[in-house]
Amino acid sequence: MSADSFAPTERTRPHRHPERGTYDREVVERTLDEALYCHVGYVVDGTPRVLPTIHVRVGETIYIHGSSASHMLRAIRDGSQVCLVATILDGLVLARSAFNHSMNYRSAVVFGPAREVTDPDEKWMAQKALVDHVCPGRSDQARMPNEKELRQTSILAIPLREASAKARTGPPKDDEEDVLLPVWAGVLPLRTVAGEPIDAPDLPPGIAPPANVRLYRRPTAGS
Amino acid sequence: MSADSFAPTERTRPHRHPERGTYDREVVERTLDEALYCHVGYVVDGTPRVLPTIHVRVGETIYIHGSSASHMLRAIRDGSQVCLVATILDGLVLARSAFNHSMNYRSAVVFGPAREVTDPDEKWMAQKALVDHVCPGRSDQARMPNEKELRQTSILAIPLREASAKARTGPPKDDEEDVLLPVWAGVLPLRTVAGEPIDAPDLPPGIAPPANVRLYRRPTAGS
Repeated sequence: MSADSFAPTERTRPHRHPERGTYDREVVERTLDEALYCHVGYVVDGTPRVLPTIHVRVGETIYIHGSSASHMLRAIRDGSQVCLVATILDGLVLARSAFNHSMNYRSAVVFGPAREVTDPDEKWMAQKALVDHVCPGRSDQARMPNEKELRQTSILAIPLREASAKARTGPPKDDEEDVLLPVWAGVLPLRTVAGEPIDAPDLPPGIAPPANVRLYRRPTAGS
Repeated sequence: MSADSFAPTERTRPHRHPERGTYDREVVERTLDEALYCHVGYVVDGTPRVLPTIHVRVGETIYIHGSSASHMLRAIRDGSQVCLVATILDGLVLARSAFNHSMNYRSAVVFGPAREVTDPDEKWMAQKALVDHVCPGRSDQARMPNEKELRQTSILAIPLREASAKARTGPPKDDEEDVLLPVWAGVLPLRTVAGEPIDAPDLPPGIAPPANVRLYRRPTAGS
């Protein structure tokens, strides 16, 4: 059974702006679910590497595509830790002073050892969840992987145990003496939107984009 | 004088999909300029850390806000390397097969030692560039930092010397035997758009958002 909050650790403790941090499980999970992709950090020969990759949370496990870098897999087989960060940008915070400019955002960070998923059933389930994370309902439409494809896929699992989230929301915070400056201040909201679907050039005639593609939006209904 | 291409190194060489990689300086610079923020990886006690932060490229130097984590500063003072990744998501690639699902994206990676910027003139210039990276023209509107604020700001510089870019573009690539499946396939373009500016609650009456905020878009005119 999982607690409502993650236990703080040295590496999940916010060093600056502690008021922006939380160990609340629901906030961490929601951020991971809403972010379309993440950045994964790992160490090779003592130096940092960071890769963008697609992730999905299934209960208390996060799955990522491990095939995006063979050296990541190697590093992880050697037992090293990963640091996964999912960030959602919500807006520009435009203050009167340059110093108080900021961003509104939500981010979740997860630390842990990664393991390579080898069980075919778990691999199949993770692949399905990854497809549905990116586009809900897509696994009912796409041809799911055959045995050869599953063998070629490498998926890593990271336990959702050591984690925290950070968020900044709301208006700029200017110093009192700046408030009356003749400078506009406020927030410019930003979001990710989908355009019109573009048919594959080899799409046979008569196949229209399904509703989950036509009406795509983030956050998705499930997250 | 800088070459048109970065010299490949072991850590910038793409391990998978080499056709997606490039050392072309212009592509790397354009990706860094268009991305609103980046993720920076560094190592603490042998384990990876990743933080989202705002960056800006000025010629052959990248500046980032170092104050977002005091332990990042400490790690960097100890001479450790950083790995900076800027990623722009362009769309979902929806294939007939789950296996061939992908994302259209552009990303740039930069490796290097970071140095803390201590020269007040360079710090002022970097702060101005950071504000204008996020919102072009903003440094002419906002009150620029005073001496106290500059002292409180910490900015790191990373040389743009060891870098590469990756990109995936275009339609899904399905296996020949899947092309006639009755499944829609194609690309769903995604982009970041701005909503209506929200006035700060303490904004005096009669100050309207300026054109660079009202008409904000990415990529910005400068990138």
